[in-house]
Amino acid sequence: MLKKVLLGSLGAVLVLTAGILLGHFGIQRGSTTPDWVMDVTQDVDEALIQKFIAEVDNIAIQENLRELTKVPHMATSPGDEKTVQYMLKRWQDPDTGLDQAWREEYKVYLSFPDPNTPNKVTVVSPSDAVLYTAREKEKAYSSDQEDPEVVQPYAAYAPAGHPKGRLVYANQGKPSDYFLLNQTLDLTGTIAITRYGGEGRAGKAINAAPYGVIGVLVYTDPWDINDGKMSDNNETYPYSWYMPPSGVERGSFNTHYGDMLTPYLAAKDDTYRIPEKNITGIPPIPTQPIGFEDAYALICELGGEPAPSEWQGAFNCTYNFGGPGFKPTSNFNNSDVKLDIYNREELKNSANVMGVIRGSVEPDRYVIYGNHRDSWVHGAIDPSSGTSVMLEVTRVLGRMVKQGKWRPRRSIIFGSWGAEEFGLIGSTEYTEEYYSKLSERSVAYINVDIAVFAITIWCLFVFLQVKTPGSDSTSVYDNWIRYFNRTSPAYGVIPNVGFLTGAGSDYAAFIHFLGITSMDISYTYDRTKTRARIYPAYHTAYDTFDYASKFIDPGFTSHQTVARTAGNVLMRLADSLLLPFNCSDYAETLEGYLNKAMELYTDGLAAHMIAIEPLQNAVRNFRSAATRLDQLVRDSDLANETPLKVRRINDQLMLLDRAFLDPGAFPDRYGFRHVIWASSKAGQATFPGLADAYTRARSTGLDSDWKEAHRQLSILIQAIQGAAHTLGDAI
Amino acid sequence: MLKKVLLGSLGAVLVLTAGILLGHFGIQRGSTTPDWVMDVTQDVDEALIQKFIAEVDNIAIQENLRELTKVPHMATSPGDEKTVQYMLKRWQDPDTGLDQAWREEYKVYLSFPDPNTPNKVTVVSPSDAVLYTAREKEKAYSSDQEDPEVVQPYAAYAPAGHPKGRLVYANQGKPSDYFLLNQTLDLTGTIAITRYGGEGRAGKAINAAPYGVIGVLVYTDPWDINDGKMSDNNETYPYSWYMPPSGVERGSFNTHYGDMLTPYLAAKDDTYRIPEKNITGIPPIPTQPIGFEDAYALICELGGEPAPSEWQGAFNCTYNFGGPGFKPTSNFNNSDVKLDIYNREELKNSANVMGVIRGSVEPDRYVIYGNHRDSWVHGAIDPSSGTSVMLEVTRVLGRMVKQGKWRPRRSIIFGSWGAEEFGLIGSTEYTEEYYSKLSERSVAYINVDIAVFAITIWCLFVFLQVKTPGSDSTSVYDNWIRYFNRTSPAYGVIPNVGFLTGAGSDYAAFIHFLGITSMDISYTYDRTKTRARIYPAYHTAYDTFDYASKFIDPGFTSHQTVARTAGNVLMRLADSLLLPFNCSDYAETLEGYLNKAMELYTDGLAAHMIAIEPLQNAVRNFRSAATRLDQLVRDSDLANETPLKVRRINDQLMLLDRAFLDPGAFPDRYGFRHVIWASSKAGQATFPGLADAYTRARSTGLDSDWKEAHRQLSILIQAIQGAAHTLGDAI
Repeated sequence: MLKKVLLGSLGAVLVLTAGILLGHFGIQRGSTTPDWVMDVTQDVDEALIQKFIAEVDNIAIQENLRELTKVPHMATSPGDEKTVQYMLKRWQDPDTGLDQAWREEYKVYLSFPDPNTPNKVTVVSPSDAVLYTAREKEKAYSSDQEDPEVVQPYAAYAPAGHPKGRLVYANQGKPSDYFLLNQTLDLTGTIAITRYGGEGRAGKAINAAPYGVIGVLVYTDPWDINDGKMSDNNETYPYSWYMPPSGVERGSFNTHYGDMLTPYLAAKDDTYRIPEKNITGIPPIPTQPIGFEDAYALICELGGEPAPSEWQGAFNCTYNFGGPGFKPTSNFNNSDVKLDIYNREELKNSANVMGVIRGSVEPDRYVIYGNHRDSWVHGAIDPSSGTSVMLEVTRVLGRMVKQGKWRPRRSIIFGSWGAEEFGLIGSTEYTEEYYSKLSERSVAYINVDIAVFAITIWCLFVFLQVKTPGSDSTSVYDNWIRYFNRTSPAYGVIPNVGFLTGAGSDYAAFIHFLGITSMDISYTYDRTKTRARIYPAYHTAYDTFDYASKFIDPGFTSHQTVARTAGNVLMRLADSLLLPFNCSDYAETLEGYLNKAMELYTDGLAAHMIAIEPLQNAVRNFRSAATRLDQLVRDSDLANETPLKVRRINDQLMLLDRAFLDPGAFPDRYGFRHVIWASSKAGQATFPGLADAYTRARSTGLDSDWKEAHRQLSILIQAIQGAAHTLGDAI
Repeated sequence: MLKKVLLGSLGAVLVLTAGILLGHFGIQRGSTTPDWVMDVTQDVDEALIQKFIAEVDNIAIQENLRELTKVPHMATSPGDEKTVQYMLKRWQDPDTGLDQAWREEYKVYLSFPDPNTPNKVTVVSPSDAVLYTAREKEKAYSSDQEDPEVVQPYAAYAPAGHPKGRLVYANQGKPSDYFLLNQTLDLTGTIAITRYGGEGRAGKAINAAPYGVIGVLVYTDPWDINDGKMSDNNETYPYSWYMPPSGVERGSFNTHYGDMLTPYLAAKDDTYRIPEKNITGIPPIPTQPIGFEDAYALICELGGEPAPSEWQGAFNCTYNFGGPGFKPTSNFNNSDVKLDIYNREELKNSANVMGVIRGSVEPDRYVIYGNHRDSWVHGAIDPSSGTSVMLEVTRVLGRMVKQGKWRPRRSIIFGSWGAEEFGLIGSTEYTEEYYSKLSERSVAYINVDIAVFAITIWCLFVFLQVKTPGSDSTSVYDNWIRYFNRTSPAYGVIPNVGFLTGAGSDYAAFIHFLGITSMDISYTYDRTKTRARIYPAYHTAYDTFDYASKFIDPGFTSHQTVARTAGNVLMRLADSLLLPFNCSDYAETLEGYLNKAMELYTDGLAAHMIAIEPLQNAVRNFRSAATRLDQLVRDSDLANETPLKVRRINDQLMLLDRAFLDPGAFPDRYGFRHVIWASSKAGQATFPGLADAYTRARSTGLDSDWKEAHRQLSILIQAIQGAAHTLGDAI
């Protein structure tokens, strides 16, 4: 699963404060000085970071990937178990492993097609003759794609059923799409075909059902993924990175993350499970994804009025709404589309593989590095590019530890999460089980899922000292600023950092549920050069070692760069005397959000007697507190003062994101408690709860909705003021 | 407000681990050793504690009380403002004050009678003649009781209204009382008279309304408070501590605590307020408290069947159910009781007075000491006995600070809370406003509200070195163990410590909402010697300096003992190198709860396929982790090891109660998040959520209720396991 490509919420901070950390002062140690005085004031050792960077090997990453992608490894499959064993072997290696590694299991609620009775999509005539059958499998171009363990494309968590009805084309399946369609057509009893994008997977069916739609198809339009390319004779994979005509994006059709039956409880054997009928956020009607080859055969035969120009895709025909149903001139005239869906839900044991390097000075401070291990098929890019990188990072660090050359100041926890593709399940259950411990002690969470999106090079992250692939002089930092920058009031032009507002990968539970400062690192492509929503083999049978090594990162130097970057970040988080976070950058973000909120909402709120000034005061207080804390750091000689002073300041920085949690802010959205970074439907770069509530109140005009807007504003003010209190003087 | 007299949840811990703390090792300081090395390893200075104990002065406490009780000081009244000014003057005193003191205000929702139109209770004949009028004021025995600022007795938050109906006697107003009454009588349109005790104040009206009862009276039966004494000629105040016939217990008739309009939000001027109609937990029908003199006049005239023997009180007549209404032989035959209630709600500014002594080594660790300042009338005992003690503690500590003789290792925060009597409002709003900061940093909260309940001596708390009043040899510890002990599996016979399971005073938000280890300290009386529910002047106009100095603590030596005890606890919490908490004692409590749960629930749960064994495992894991942590402490030489090690262990101890919070455990109960200490209706010494859910499921047999029992069990297991994880190895 990867809904959005986003970045660490405090990512920029790491870059910008790096300079502060480079010099530190040693203590002259006298004969009567206790032994521990040196240890507690030790800062990052730059030589060790250089050593780490030098030892990260691209070919080792390539071989990791080859091993991880030998067979399909969907969550809880035999292939998944093989990867568990492989991770354990690597992390328990006496020469290059971690201090300790083990597996942890959860019994989780998954959804699979029936291998003996595949899902079917057919066109059937009024006399029930089958006029057309969509592919049940993707076309194989290599032997690994023929593996019987390749799961049939399906919509996980869509219910089984056999709806049959006239076909309509519903664009992206957004509420506005069905609204428009419903203006001219009676949708009762129809099957809607939709394209990926613009709306979450589950939403396409959830939005449809109220109009009487009884089944949903979804496909990837070549316009959105292939820059219009459609032919596998010379255009698509195996000739390029583009998706072949039979390629199908699988996915979890859910709205909330974590195990669906055990919200807020780790899914142990005996844990209470809610009744299945109480699950929300999944398709209420049968749903099936198909390839664009089949979508073409259906859409171009549709009757009815032409759809608006924004609904048109790359097919060489006009996309009509549907009569409903096919046009009179079509062979499919008067025919229905029928879905035969046999998905079934199962409770299965899913494993996380965990490993640790114990900290020497502050073992009770955790830097967490994670990625999921499960894929839909071979998952060479999603997630094994990230896992290959993680294994190389642990190999180099593990060897330094085993050789006695290095031990981090803080502890490092590595997590290889299970069942992410079904809804970030492994990481979420982990955060539920260890909620208190992780909340109290975690410094940061680093996620590297899809490590490298494409060969087109620009980077999303990091330091001057890591060079871009194929260059000895251009740093990742330079490259980043070149391709994706913004102007900061404080720093001028700097690399732009996205915000982790969604639940696109395993960082979700860490940042949104636990309020742990998080970062998602990947190398991606220049979006001015392609319209591809994501790399085209995403969640298909074509995401293989062959694809990755030919079309994504030949030579694996981009992977190497990501490994160097991630390891560099990890070592600095683990070893810095002062945590490399800058709360003034947080203030800058809040000020940006505030300005947008003032611009958009001041008048509308005032018209309902709701003052926005207290929000201004709160942001102002946050800025003052951040400035004072910065000043305190500048005025301190932390390496020579009591270690409890740097611990205090580090605690202030570490716990800053925690202060933005409010379990009552979004009661209907599982695991969203962070009032700054929660996702929002309003599409504005501002405070999400306020934005959504305001937008709704403006649209309905209901008094109760204006009350909710006021409530959201008060929650936000209290959180920002509360965070400012935590940054202020200790007492 | 003080619903129950209870004790610190980890109280015993402080006693039992004191021994560990008495010896510590200094560090030989060499010429090149950094300055801070001595400071960070400094432990409690016993000489300073002795000095503190010696300087606590009983007469100073007496004079504090005299000053505080000059005039009535109900929340937000002019008298309350006088106490604000007095606290500020004391805490800002240059010789004996704190480092800093200031006021903080909240705009809170209060309820008052109308001084111009007092509430009335009358008996009216069918022809509307007034046959009897209950007193509007309590009888004055001294001039201060005649102060016009003495608020009329009333039921705060009961609605205004003018119900008139036949009188019935409903015992304590419990659900079972109305259920029984309803067996033989039609309660529609009746007024119920109830006695205090057995049910919360608001519950007496909330339980009544579904039966059609339209008004409620409440009084204190002499059986429950006066050991049957009724005459003010020689038996009651001013001849003894007993309540005079016209005495009325005022109170807040609420179920939840904190400002009712701003749940989970600090009540600032611009804060969102819920609509008043959405308030829950207050009387739906007019309610009024009266003296037993008036209750006698009404109850002894009631007709109908005699009430059961458990319903009978101290009056020299049979308590009948009511016909409904009075008996045919009564002058009140065929008459109704009429309530004319003019209560009105107002938003008022209520002040907390805050003060701090900054910590030297760990300023970011807080020990909080608080008490409310507002009373119903003069409040000599509730709360001014506690405030007098607090002022003496701050005088002695403040002088030590101002003279440069002492500065605590950790910071101390003093809170003089406003509007407690209306529902713990000042302290609750404070915890909402500073939620993050307090959660992250608070070591403990100490509450001293009613400091001394009675002259009959036994003690609820503390150390061998504090002597009981009037004794040079008997320690408070000895006395405590003599009057209130239990047998611990680990220690044998030890002082018994109650649990802070309710919301009886300002500790509620600290322990239940924030999960901060809390303690409530008071000196109270031997309950084998009296049936008094509480000291008899509680919430009446008789709780004056005269009453306190004559009948509660002549010479103020019990107050002195409480001040010595509280200050001793405070200094140890603030100065100990290792926090004086013992997690093995927590394990003992959990084991006690587990045994009770196994005994009561194992079979019933098993019959519904719910296994209790995972709870056993969780408690076992907690015990192991606690034992390991104890061992680590024993094996460590904390004064000579890195200060980050003792900080780590202290963080484990400090945050232990936090690990038991679950915001989803009791979603309908404001501010109850602690799954071990929450109050329970089941009346069993076991886990409250499980106990209540199990009891309900057994009674209804509904599948949904058994599911809730399972959910509560899972929540509990996860919390205990999570807490065990926090006590275990750092990584």
